[in-house]
Amino acid sequence: MSFLDLIVKPTVVVNLIKVESNIRRMIQRAKESNASLRPHFKTHQSGQIGELFRKHNLTSITVSSVSMARYFAMHGWTDITIAFPFNIREAKSLTEIQRLAKVTLITASSETIVFLQEQLNEAVNLMLKIDTGNQRSGIQVSNYQSIQKLVDSINKSKLTHFAGFLVHAGHTYKAKGLYEIQQIADHGHEVLSTLQSNFGVEKIISWGDTPSCSMAQMKGYFEEWRPGNFVFYDLMQYHIGSCQLDDIAVIVVCPVVEVHPDRKKLIIYGGAIHFSKEFIAADSGFQLFGYIVLLHENGWSKPISGAWLSSVSQEHGIVMFSGDEASSFKPGDLIGVMPVHSCLVTSASKEMLSTGGELITCMK
Amino acid sequence: MSFLDLIVKPTVVVNLIKVESNIRRMIQRAKESNASLRPHFKTHQSGQIGELFRKHNLTSITVSSVSMARYFAMHGWTDITIAFPFNIREAKSLTEIQRLAKVTLITASSETIVFLQEQLNEAVNLMLKIDTGNQRSGIQVSNYQSIQKLVDSINKSKLTHFAGFLVHAGHTYKAKGLYEIQQIADHGHEVLSTLQSNFGVEKIISWGDTPSCSMAQMKGYFEEWRPGNFVFYDLMQYHIGSCQLDDIAVIVVCPVVEVHPDRKKLIIYGGAIHFSKEFIAADSGFQLFGYIVLLHENGWSKPISGAWLSSVSQEHGIVMFSGDEASSFKPGDLIGVMPVHSCLVTSASKEMLSTGGELITCMK
Repeated sequence: MSFLDLIVKPTVVVNLIKVESNIRRMIQRAKESNASLRPHFKTHQSGQIGELFRKHNLTSITVSSVSMARYFAMHGWTDITIAFPFNIREAKSLTEIQRLAKVTLITASSETIVFLQEQLNEAVNLMLKIDTGNQRSGIQVSNYQSIQKLVDSINKSKLTHFAGFLVHAGHTYKAKGLYEIQQIADHGHEVLSTLQSNFGVEKIISWGDTPSCSMAQMKGYFEEWRPGNFVFYDLMQYHIGSCQLDDIAVIVVCPVVEVHPDRKKLIIYGGAIHFSKEFIAADSGFQLFGYIVLLHENGWSKPISGAWLSSVSQEHGIVMFSGDEASSFKPGDLIGVMPVHSCLVTSASKEMLSTGGELITCMK
Repeated sequence: MSFLDLIVKPTVVVNLIKVESNIRRMIQRAKESNASLRPHFKTHQSGQIGELFRKHNLTSITVSSVSMARYFAMHGWTDITIAFPFNIREAKSLTEIQRLAKVTLITASSETIVFLQEQLNEAVNLMLKIDTGNQRSGIQVSNYQSIQKLVDSINKSKLTHFAGFLVHAGHTYKAKGLYEIQQIADHGHEVLSTLQSNFGVEKIISWGDTPSCSMAQMKGYFEEWRPGNFVFYDLMQYHIGSCQLDDIAVIVVCPVVEVHPDRKKLIIYGGAIHFSKEFIAADSGFQLFGYIVLLHENGWSKPISGAWLSSVSQEHGIVMFSGDEASSFKPGDLIGVMPVHSCLVTSASKEMLSTGGELITCMK
């Protein structure tokens, strides 16, 4: 029996051999760059996928919410960084998680630091969120005055232990190719080294994002890496240059529900609630929501040339072909979609299926 | 105690008074247009919100998946149309649901019709999915030859009962204002009336979409209406012209986690996994992911002028202000976001909270 026989609805399917290979490659790259790897588990959100990391003796992980920290603490992870500005409304959950794991929080707010110092029973590691160009959250790396103030504030109490600086170089997602990615990594290294030497070199720099960790030369740049997406990769990463199409370890298998050979299209059960509305934009308003792959009993083919998921509504997806491939399908067949953003696809799903037919449960 | 005291994480909040008013208005409009109302429940996906319809003696509903049909059948709904091309891989679930409810399916495929005739134990109503311009799924309304073939195929067995034609005029979502919406409704009426008179006038026309049902003049046009979004509305509907801002019955309440008055922005806990990546595009690449409202113990304010949710990543949202409002917030505060697409927001959530503090569970 093939994994395909188990599928009746849109289903996230994972190739664990590709996952294993992606993990090995990233472990090797981090090692060669003298960085500790603290992988971000928000991409898979699965205790079972976590075990594939654990067997390589990785013990430290990153998550993006207090709920996710709780989930992985309950799966036996004892060193967890919550790489999201700490939400003080969840302080009660934090206390519970601290019973199971060493927790590191991040913040860029003096109010949050004071709150933690007033409310915590047990000490917590605290990293300052620094912005080296992503322009999302964090203190701008050049703003030494504010950084000094926050460090002083953290040092006022033994309940908050200053553990270093954390950066998410998310601007690599807007870059393309090694040259632009390398520039971001080089710039990050330059400004963060200066920062580090100002605030004590024993404080670590934690750097994260799949594009730079996948391809940039960062030997000796940062003490810690926190990439996440690399475990599965996706079309966004492929277009940035972080991976090959063959490295992409996850697809969504969708039932075909209508076939229109005259219009060179299929209607599939698989829409915005499965893929999100993330797309890759090209010239002239063209939007790409996924590549199309054919399925076989052990996995999937390379993407079909000239075929793509062209639009998604709540449950519907439209698959378009340049050739006559639509005529070879009938309602009830299955087709695979290689997604634009694997993190959102996984997050939308309660469970995944391996190509070996194993059910993989996720946090929900 | 206010509903706000119950919120620690991003939470979908519903104003049930607005919901009730939206339901009443749509019932009245359908009645004045001589149409039966078969509301689409995919927008709320909640047994409790369903009860607000039931108390108006509505007994027939629409859903968008077999799973949703099962959920509402188990909540006592006995007349359910699954307005999504039937996915034959879920035939077993269909048989189970038929024990609880009269089910109407839609299709545009002869293979699906033959499959149902071969596999079903109990007769099912079958409507043909017709495309009057949306260009998503269905048979093009002018393609009489194909329609005749499918009708003949349905009539070959007593297990499939031909129940009429179903249209989702989703192209109203790309239209703006009453003039364009009215054109779509008028055109739909014209071509569908001709179709109906060709295939027997006792066959009903089922028409759905919130924009036309909210504002177009459709007296005597169609036997059945299936709008769904109107129960909550959202910014997309507001921009189309289907509702006033004050009719929007749902927001997402998000904790503030970082405050940057110098950059006139807030970082909130609330991102793509809560809002999806649906946005409203404006000139020069501007993307709007939501309007910003202030919260009070019983509800929310009108949107703040010149404030918007400007981007979302997995869990982060960035709120931008034109004025100095950011300086009045601190981490731990709550802020409200009026969403672009309420269906996707609700679908991403396992539960909602009413402004009265009542927990509203959803299908998950």
